[in-house]
Parts: sequence; structure tokens; C-alpha cells
Amino acid sequence: MTVQQLETVEQEFLAYVKKMGSYGEALSLVFWDLRTGAPSKGIEQRSEVIGILSADIFDMSTSEKMESFLKELEGKEGLSEITVKTLTECRKEFDRNKKIPKEEYQEYVKLQAIAESTWEKAREASDFAMFEPYLEKLVAFNKKFITYLGYEGTPYDRLLDEYEPGVTVEVLDRVFGQLRESIVPLVKQIAESKKELKTEALFKHFSKAKQEEFTLKLVEELGYDFEAGRLDETVHPFAITLSQKDVRITTRYDENDFRMALFGTIHECGHAVYEQNISSDLMGTPLSAGTSMGIHESQSLFYENMIGRNKSFWKRHYDRLKEYSDGQFDSLSLDEYYEAINESKPSFIRIEADELTYPLHVMVRYEIEKELFNGNLQVKDLPKVWNEKMEEYLGIVPENDAKGVLQDVHWSGGSFGYFPSYALGYMYAAQFKNTMIKDIPNFDALLEEGNVTPIREWLTENIHKHGRLKKPLDILRDVTGEELNATHLIRYLEAKYKEIYNL
Amino acid sequence: MTVQQLETVEQEFLAYVKKMGSYGEALSLVFWDLRTGAPSKGIEQRSEVIGILSADIFDMSTSEKMESFLKELEGKEGLSEITVKTLTECRKEFDRNKKIPKEEYQEYVKLQAIAESTWEKAREASDFAMFEPYLEKLVAFNKKFITYLGYEGTPYDRLLDEYEPGVTVEVLDRVFGQLRESIVPLVKQIAESKKELKTEALFKHFSKAKQEEFTLKLVEELGYDFEAGRLDETVHPFAITLSQKDVRITTRYDENDFRMALFGTIHECGHAVYEQNISSDLMGTPLSAGTSMGIHESQSLFYENMIGRNKSFWKRHYDRLKEYSDGQFDSLSLDEYYEAINESKPSFIRIEADELTYPLHVMVRYEIEKELFNGNLQVKDLPKVWNEKMEEYLGIVPENDAKGVLQDVHWSGGSFGYFPSYALGYMYAAQFKNTMIKDIPNFDALLEEGNVTPIREWLTENIHKHGRLKKPLDILRDVTGEELNATHLIRYLEAKYKEIYNL
Repeated sequence: MTVQQLETVEQEFLAYVKKMGSYGEALSLVFWDLRTGAPSKGIEQRSEVIGILSADIFDMSTSEKMESFLKELEGKEGLSEITVKTLTECRKEFDRNKKIPKEEYQEYVKLQAIAESTWEKAREASDFAMFEPYLEKLVAFNKKFITYLGYEGTPYDRLLDEYEPGVTVEVLDRVFGQLRESIVPLVKQIAESKKELKTEALFKHFSKAKQEEFTLKLVEELGYDFEAGRLDETVHPFAITLSQKDVRITTRYDENDFRMALFGTIHECGHAVYEQNISSDLMGTPLSAGTSMGIHESQSLFYENMIGRNKSFWKRHYDRLKEYSDGQFDSLSLDEYYEAINESKPSFIRIEADELTYPLHVMVRYEIEKELFNGNLQVKDLPKVWNEKMEEYLGIVPENDAKGVLQDVHWSGGSFGYFPSYALGYMYAAQFKNTMIKDIPNFDALLEEGNVTPIREWLTENIHKHGRLKKPLDILRDVTGEELNATHLIRYLEAKYKEIYNL
Repeated sequence: MTVQQLETVEQEFLAYVKKMGSYGEALSLVFWDLRTGAPSKGIEQRSEVIGILSADIFDMSTSEKMESFLKELEGKEGLSEITVKTLTECRKEFDRNKKIPKEEYQEYVKLQAIAESTWEKAREASDFAMFEPYLEKLVAFNKKFITYLGYEGTPYDRLLDEYEPGVTVEVLDRVFGQLRESIVPLVKQIAESKKELKTEALFKHFSKAKQEEFTLKLVEELGYDFEAGRLDETVHPFAITLSQKDVRITTRYDENDFRMALFGTIHECGHAVYEQNISSDLMGTPLSAGTSMGIHESQSLFYENMIGRNKSFWKRHYDRLKEYSDGQFDSLSLDEYYEAINESKPSFIRIEADELTYPLHVMVRYEIEKELFNGNLQVKDLPKVWNEKMEEYLGIVPENDAKGVLQDVHWSGGSFGYFPSYALGYMYAAQFKNTMIKDIPNFDALLEEGNVTPIREWLTENIHKHGRLKKPLDILRDVTGEELNATHLIRYLEAKYKEIYNL
């Protein structure tokens, strides 16, 4: 191929990939709409639209055209970095979609749908046996897929790689072990401490309209660009990217627990700010997305906890919160409020857990998944193992499976290997923060001033802008000079919680 | 082909058409989103999505696959009525899209975009000369397209046929002439009448939140199904069909003129109720849509005027309106209110015109379009002819072109032949009403009771359910036993306005 021919093929390839992205954008709009107010009677027909657009993307990702692009471009000199990395993403998709026989995959997709609706009923009835046969099939499918796709290390590493490239069982065992050694004793110390936090005010009535007003101003100040996004209500809040110029966030208002909307929106804002600030050079390629689930979660958790649950942040905002509220905070000092929103105690439900105990919930799931795929754990034994692990890590045992092994939707959709990302997010965030304060030593003062811009810009410069150009552990290494470790997270949690609980 | 083979091809054809419909559904969602709050920075990339989905539909409508379906199925015995009529729709699309050379059409699409943005600026500056060269090109393109597509009767009939199949210049000259002969003198009589209507209350402050609450309840009572639709805010209100199970309406609130949202929403509700009640047998085919612009407009106008501006309707709702309002109606009797919302006087802007003068605005445009395509009228002479016609029909001359020939967006998008549908809607509605009251003699009593169901069911049974299975004039004939005429509209308007103005 001449240089000119190569350039032509490269341009055609990028246009082809952009078209796939446009189908994805339409699909994202459909999902956003479904979750923010699409009328119920239209859903059945809308699922046809989803099927068609998904099939278009799938077909394009495995087409002869794609195959020939890969063949003609891979390994060639003179391609842009964006093209090279885009080829890597397309190759990964191509191989995965080609290696799994189409019929088996279609069967699996059908199973996912039935499994998810069965899981809903099983959780409702707190009846694991109802869900068990479906979960067994989902595990079996995934084991088969792992053999089709191949793996280095252990079978479960293959699943982890989908969500957090480079993070293996070996890595997780090390960092989760390190984290657990420090957290489990700390959780115990807190449980034994005599300190009573004043949390009643958190659950007093706070009008939805006022919450909304307060939250909107807050996320705007935090750097969320409303000209490239919007905030809507939904049942299970999420952030969704249509394009990097249209990244939408959603929230849910609970008039008897304002933390739901407040910290939930700040969390989604962290996800959205990441995607809004990816370099525009990557627009229209699969690189215009967060690089991994864990790095994504590091951004949402950075916003939610390092900013949103920081005392300096509330030095600025607490008086305004009082103004908007119905008076419940009038007799609560700033310190008392800060402690209340940072209360930690073992609980059954992961998504309701506090910053300190949350990673332990994740580890329960990680140990189970690891044993399912690398060991001899049987699906039927999950409830028992779940409860044992909860006892071991958190010191509590759920009274039923609805509050235990059946609580999460993930497994019913066949998502194994996803959970560790949540805990990785905490570690990444703490590592980033540790480096950031060397560049921005006045971090707390900036929060108190309401000037988040330097912090957001630091994140953009170091993390956001790269999109998927860099792998998660490369970003971590480039930014912090360190490998993944739990040291900074442990230091952060110990400092914070020892102060709050006078330990 | 054996019967079995034919059946297989028929099923494949219907699946193919359904897929086209699904792309259309995704596209409708994109348009709805763009007009109800999509963030501004995302629009440029979203236009790529629009381009791709539109191209998919276009390509499918002119593909070799489509050609072979048409060839194998057209004229065959044993096909369902739905298939036969769907073939007719597809043939029409196929021929139109094939007969116009693709390059010319693409050039035309580009022109449309530039022309529309130029028109906006020209209207802003009230400078027809700025828009003139673009309008000239648009007319020239359409003249060329007419020769490609061919026509019976006159060239302009070809354009009319796009919006109102079967309604020709011959028909329009007859019915518009009949209508004008009665309306023009009536408008003059009203202008000369001494009666002063008490309209000040209409323009007093009415809070948006209260308007919204009132309007929502109203359209629900009028039979709009909120499980198959939703109401949002927008700048230029519209109804849009994603599928017949998801037909959305939009509105605009003016706190100093509540009529905008109230009658606007009732109008869009009429459009939406039509599409929501098309027979579900037609779902997934191009027949699942209103049969023509005119019949569509007959339903929205029936709702807006025959129901929403009817005195019996307000006997039920006026007290509630008073409750929701800020007190401005307290000293206005029901009769005075009824007269105020039915005030008629010549005005410059079509979309602000009342029920009586509105058709005259349409006729000004009709006469101009007819002369442009069938006669010798030159684009440069449009402002002059516009003002002459306004003088002749409405007795007023706009002070500038912004309030005259430049007021409507339609021509800038190349939509010639569309305007007559608006006036046809009035005639159809009056003809339908005349027949309906033979079946439902207690029409007014039902409105007063708030029981619109029998009225809605009558419209569904006679009009809605057929979708595009029947052509507009066939529906009219089947329902009323009459040809298109202005008699019932004239009677309705004369009775109404002579009472209001004591003539």
C-alpha cells in the first residue's frame, strides 16, 4: 500500500467507527429516555428499536469490512496514535464477538433477560432457590466463554479484564488483603466506641423542590457543564454519555433522606465531568469514554467523598443548606453535621453502605466470584458462603437472602468481575488525591472558597483528557509514580474515622 | 410462486418495513429530544446521528431488496389488505426517491438548511431581498422535481398530493371560493360592529405552574393517554409519534397569555389522540399514521375549537379555571369569558389568527403558491402580491415583510402545497361535526358533563382507527356521505360569530 492509500483506508476506518458511535449514541438516547419518563405502553415496541440498533453495532464490529480494516491497518507505520488505539479497541471487540458462536451468544442474551426478571421476583420473595438454576446457567455460559476467549493467569482474570484491564486476581488479592487488614479492625473499633453521632436531622422532611434547587447549583459549581448535559429524575440514578458533548445525569429525591439526591448527584457529576472533559480529538472514536470502570468510579468517588464529604466543602455550603432546608439543621453545628454525614456502621446493603465499610461489601462478592470461576464453589452454596463472609468482614449476618446474596442486579445480567471496580475506585481516588495535594496543597482552602476549577483541571489534565488512550494502571503509574496499593486509602480512612469517632 | 412462498415473501416484506419503522422511531426520539431540552453543545454531533438514521431509511426505501419485494408482491392475489396498502405506500416512496437523481436531492437538502437559516435572519431584519435568491432556488428545484415525478392536472397538484392525496387545485378553487364568499363579508361585518369584547383578563398574569396543572388534567379528561405519551415544554409546540404507543405532545407557557398553553395543548392533544387510537393491527407499518395533513388538522381543530372553544365545555371548566388563576376572571361572567376567547379580528400573523380569519391567511398563501407553480408569478413579486391579497381578504396590509410574506418557516424548508391542509382541516372538522351530532345529539350536554368518551370513540371508530388504510377524501365520503365542501364550516362560523357579535 502507498502512503496515500494507507491514509485513505485510515480515513475510511475512522468514518466507519464514527458511524458505529452514532448508532451507539442513538441507543444511549433510547436508554436515557426509557429511564427518565418514556411512557410505559411504548416500551415493548421500543425494545425492537434497541434490538435493531444493537444488531447494527454488532454486525459492524464483526463485518468483513471491519476484518479488512484490521488486516490492512494493524501494525502499519505512519498511523496516528488515535487510529492505533482505536484499532486495539476494535480488535478486542472483533475477537470477542467472533470467538463466541453467535447462536450461543443469542441464547445467552435471552437467558440474561429471563434471569433478570426472575432475580427481581426471587429478591421480592427472598427465595434464592428460585434464582439458582438461572445463576447456574449464567455461570456455566461464562465459563464456556472464558474457554473460547482464552486467558492468561486464571479464568477469572479474563472476566476482570473486561472491566479493569491489567488488574488480575494476583493484584486484587494483594491490595484487598492489605485493605482488609486495616479496615476490619477499624470497623470493630468504631462499633465498640461510645461516640453517638447526631444523625436524626438527616431524616427529617426536606422538600423535593428545595433539594433540587440546592443540588443544581452545587453540581454547576462543581464543574458539571449544563450546556453539555442535563439533570433528570429516575428510579436508579446513573450517568449516561450520548456524546462527550451530551453527558446526562439523573437522580432520585427522597424527602425523608436528602443524602440520596445530594450525594448521589455529586457522585454522578463525578462520572459526567470525566466524560465531558475527554479530549475532543477522541470524539467519534471508542476512545472517547472512561478508560475503565475502576477509574470511572475513582472520579465519582473523588467527587462524592473527597469533595462532597469533606469538612471544608461544608464550611462553604452548610449555611446555604440550612437556608434551603426546613429548619432541621438549625440546632446542629457544622462539626456535628460533618460527623453525621460520615457516620459508619456495618449494614447489609452495599449501595447504602458508608465509605469505610463499602469496600468490605465488594470483597465479599470478589471472594465468591473468584471461587466460582477459579475454585470449586457451587452456585447452590452461595447463600451460605455469603453469610459467612459478611460475618467475617463486617461482623453481621443478613436475616434473609433479599438482604444478602440476592441484593444486587449484576449477576442476573451475567456481570461477573464488575464488583472489584467499585473498591478499586476508592483506592485510585486516594492515590490520586495523595499526588494531587502535592500540586494543590491548598485543596481544602479551595473547597472552602468554592473554587473547584483547579481541582477539576488537575483531574482533566491527568486523567479525563486521555479517555481510553491510556489503560487504567498506566494512568495510575503516570500520575502517581506508584503501582496500585491500598496505603493511601487506608491512611485517609484511618485519619478521617479516628477523628470522627475519637479513637 | 407457490402460496407458501408468497406468504414467506409477504412476511419478509412486513419485517423489512417494520425495521424501517424502527429507524424512524429512533429518529423521532432524537427530534423530540432536540426540541425539549437536549443540551446545546451536543447538537452538532447529534446531527450526524440524524444523517445516519435518515440515510438508513432512505437506502432501505430504494434498495434492491425493496425493488424485489415490490416486483414479487404487487398485484398478487391473497395478500392481506394491510400488505397491499403498505405496498402502495412503499411504491410511492420508491418512485419518488428513485425518480429524483440522488445528487440533485442532496444538493436540495443542503439548500434547505441554508435557506432556513437565511430565512431566520431575513425575517429578523424584515428583508425579503436577503431570502429571495434562496426562495427562487427552492422553487426552481421543486419545479424540476415536479417534471421528474410527473403529474395529472396541474404542476401544483403534484405538490398538493404530497400532503392531501386527492385534493387538487380544481377542488381547492371551488371550496376556498365558497368559503371566501361567506367569510370575507362576515369579517367585515364584525369589524364594523359596535360590540366590545372584554378581553383584558386574558392577558393578566397566570402562573405557569397553575397553568400546567390545569392543562394536564384537562387533556387527560379529553382522552389523551399519558401511559402512551407525555407532555413537555418547547419553543414551537408540536405532537410527535414515536410509535402509536408513544405519542408525545409539547406546549409553551406564556404567563401573560394563558391561551397559548391551554388551546395549544388541546390542539396537540387532538393530533395525539388521533395517532394513539389507530388500530394496533397497523403497528409497525407506514399505515400507522394519520392519513393526511388535512385530516390530522381536522382532529386537532376539532379538539381545539369544537370542544375547547365551545360554551358547554366552559360551563364545566370555567369555575375550575377561576380557581387555578390569579383572580383575573372573578368579575368576568361565563358568557363574557366565552366571547373573549372567541374574539375575531383581522391580524397579520397566521398562527395568532382566530378561527374565523385563519382560513383567509391560508388562502393568501394558496393563491401565491398556485401562481408560482401553475402561473407566471415571480418570486421577486411575492411581497407585493402578499400585501394585495391581505388587503383583499382581510382588509389589512402588514407594515413590513416580517409581519407579511416572511412570517412562515414552511417555504424556507421547501414545503409548498402544505398550507391548504390547514384550511381543509377546518372544513373536514365541520363536516365531521355535522354528521357526528346526528349520532350524538347530546354533544353539548356531554361536554358539560365532562364525558368526552363517546365523542372520542366516534372519532376513533370513523377516522382514527383507519390510519392510512383510507385516503382522506374516502374517509370524508364514508363518514359524511358528502364530498368536500365549505357549507358546514360556513354555517358553523356564521352561527357562532353572529351570536357573539349580535349580528
